Amino acid sequence: MSKNVLYAQAGGITAVINASAAAVLETAQSHPERFGTVYAAINGIVGVLEERLVDMSQLDASQIKQLKTHPGAAFEACRFDLDPLEDNPEQYERVLTVFKHYDIGYFFYNGGNGSMVTAQKVADYCTSQGHPVTCIGVAKTIDNDLDISHCSPGFGSAAKFIASSLLEVNMDLKSMHNTSTKFLAFESMGRNTGWLTIAGGLIKNAIPDIPLLILPAERAFNKQKFLARVQQLFDEKGYCLCVVSEGLQDEQGNYVSITNIEHTHLQDYTQLGGVADALSHMVAQEMGVKTHSITPDYLQRSASHFVSKTDWQMAYDAGKSAVIAAMNGEHGVLPIIEVTSESPFSWRFTNVDLMTVADLEKTVPDHFLTPDGMDITQAALDYLTPLIQGEMPFTYVNGLPDIRLFDFSLLPQQLAPYKIVK
Amino acid sequence: MSKNVLYAQAGGITAVINASAAAVLETAQSHPERFGTVYAAINGIVGVLEERLVDMSQLDASQIKQLKTHPGAAFEACRFDLDPLEDNPEQYERVLTVFKHYDIGYFFYNGGNGSMVTAQKVADYCTSQGHPVTCIGVAKTIDNDLDISHCSPGFGSAAKFIASSLLEVNMDLKSMHNTSTKFLAFESMGRNTGWLTIAGGLIKNAIPDIPLLILPAERAFNKQKFLARVQQLFDEKGYCLCVVSEGLQDEQGNYVSITNIEHTHLQDYTQLGGVADALSHMVAQEMGVKTHSITPDYLQRSASHFVSKTDWQMAYDAGKSAVIAAMNGEHGVLPIIEVTSESPFSWRFTNVDLMTVADLEKTVPDHFLTPDGMDITQAALDYLTPLIQGEMPFTYVNGLPDIRLFDFSLLPQQLAPYKIVK
Repeated sequence: MSKNVLYAQAGGITAVINASAAAVLETAQSHPERFGTVYAAINGIVGVLEERLVDMSQLDASQIKQLKTHPGAAFEACRFDLDPLEDNPEQYERVLTVFKHYDIGYFFYNGGNGSMVTAQKVADYCTSQGHPVTCIGVAKTIDNDLDISHCSPGFGSAAKFIASSLLEVNMDLKSMHNTSTKFLAFESMGRNTGWLTIAGGLIKNAIPDIPLLILPAERAFNKQKFLARVQQLFDEKGYCLCVVSEGLQDEQGNYVSITNIEHTHLQDYTQLGGVADALSHMVAQEMGVKTHSITPDYLQRSASHFVSKTDWQMAYDAGKSAVIAAMNGEHGVLPIIEVTSESPFSWRFTNVDLMTVADLEKTVPDHFLTPDGMDITQAALDYLTPLIQGEMPFTYVNGLPDIRLFDFSLLPQQLAPYKIVK
Repeated sequence: MSKNVLYAQAGGITAVINASAAAVLETAQSHPERFGTVYAAINGIVGVLEERLVDMSQLDASQIKQLKTHPGAAFEACRFDLDPLEDNPEQYERVLTVFKHYDIGYFFYNGGNGSMVTAQKVADYCTSQGHPVTCIGVAKTIDNDLDISHCSPGFGSAAKFIASSLLEVNMDLKSMHNTSTKFLAFESMGRNTGWLTIAGGLIKNAIPDIPLLILPAERAFNKQKFLARVQQLFDEKGYCLCVVSEGLQDEQGNYVSITNIEHTHLQDYTQLGGVADALSHMVAQEMGVKTHSITPDYLQRSASHFVSKTDWQMAYDAGKSAVIAAMNGEHGVLPIIEVTSESPFSWRFTNVDLMTVADLEKTVPDHFLTPDGMDITQAALDYLTPLIQGEMPFTYVNGLPDIRLFDFSLLPQQLAPYKIVK
């Protein structure tokens, strides 16, 4: 007997998150004996509570094609987690009501660790109330901090964006440095981990002796050692390109960014940013040279023009594997990536317990960094290089990328309205 | 009787400046009766003084092909102008010595207004000393502030980068705004002019009703009116995307940027930057929402992945037209773009007096901006749209753009060494 499917997106987006959405849809549709209608909730669990749902099964071929390469979260990704059950049982009852009404038996949550744990709690609650729901996670994060998994879907494309952008910018800096800018800092996302920062090192595959400094979040920033290394690169090459984690901290644990403004109106959130500016001002003032800085911010995770085909395939496979796991009777698992061959590079998805992986955070290992912590090793390059291989078709309309709003119809609401109170 | 050619690059680069270099080479080579060896000076006029020259005629077909799409200034662009003749006649004598030694009869300078005027003074000096030199400018600037010309080679590609990037980022912001970031500021280059800022408005061709605020340098920033407009877009669409000129000033003429740090060790130079940060902090603090900001900086002018084919052709034609102008006996002119047909869009190059155009700066005209100065009109869109049309082939090697260092051999120095003293 088939049950219906609910798919939702949560947390920071990736450039390939919608490939996972398409995979959930296509895989579930290919098994009608197990899966009925495939719904998507708009804005993650918020859309479940508010009964804002889309019938994905109604998407036509051209919409599915668009979905597969659409940047942003096509169904809107929430940064919202349910309260603990004991604090707000009404939230869980509401979800149960919605799940029952739409006969949801499978819940695929494409989100970060925290969101997926909440999803599993929801599924467990429904099951305990006599409405069995299978919950399977769909991995995604540009930060690559998901542990156990070889890498995270979304990381390869962000890595490709960062390395490709640095390659272009290097040519600018190199061609101007004799009489103008000598130092340029490029700020990558990553609050606690430097995976995106070390991805900048991929530029070495094109220019092995590039004067590049890599400052990952895992290593405390030491101003004297940093300036000495910049001077060394100035002496050797005349200029210095620097890629730095937004979350870089000094040896006292203080963020290096100039403007660490607390957004006190937002609970539990301190916005980072400004570390590239901070370093470029530092070099300008201490060394008397002209400097620049780049903060690509959201471009890192929405740049559909630099999507890695390998990464895209991993994101698709993440969605597909989640549906297959459900078919195999799994519950409360997250399909993660296991490399089966280094050359040719290949992988498969295997399932790990959601609760186990949720509390872990994968940082850049020591052997990926040189002893001074400001460069990467060959081992790191060997790890990174396969993840950015291949490109997706990229088309233009009227001089701009062929990116349109992703259009769909919301299902008419059938339940009593529900207002979220936090 | 043929004379040799000197080509050099100066000032901020564009993504298509090297198309002009290739055009000078190819056009001159196709007229051997007039043009002998084509030299390039490394680092603009600095390379002339220091006798750091390349024989471009020795570039092979694959190098010329690479040159045509190489980002950065292949021959290095200087930010260096000669002193006034009366202050430093030795500089001019040195240039004359180099020009005589290499039998330079044509000087094509691919630079900003100031640089080109210096180039003409050099040519005039040489001519007055019995060594006639024809000087022709080759236009380039991403800022689009070159007057009389319909637009500037380099602008279309930067415009395409900005609009394309905004289009991708919009999908990110739109998909997250319900429970996360509601405001994102994107900082475009342009100290005095808002051409690159209004280029962000090209996104309206893809999403006509996008909640976009455009803040060009030509309009004084008024905090209250800005915040009111942001609130209006929040009310209408739930979020707001903002593109802003780095040189935005308030009604008192103060830069809006947070960190207007004077680099006092650099003469006559105040580095801007930080206005996007400033606006995003302002919105966060005044309106209590999460905000982000993007500073693409050099990416705007080095992004070979978003080169406009139209712009590329204009850059090529600028170099070609300069050589043709020289063949036609012109001197002290700059070939500029005149539109010959709106539909289909076509143009030709005509020559204007270098000295006349050098002192002018083209700002965004009033009729391109809405009365409140925070949006663009259809007239602006009609102007911008043709400039971003078409794409150039873009290839990858090992997962990264096929961008390598541009390799060439310096000619052995034959003259006494010369040390630049400023």
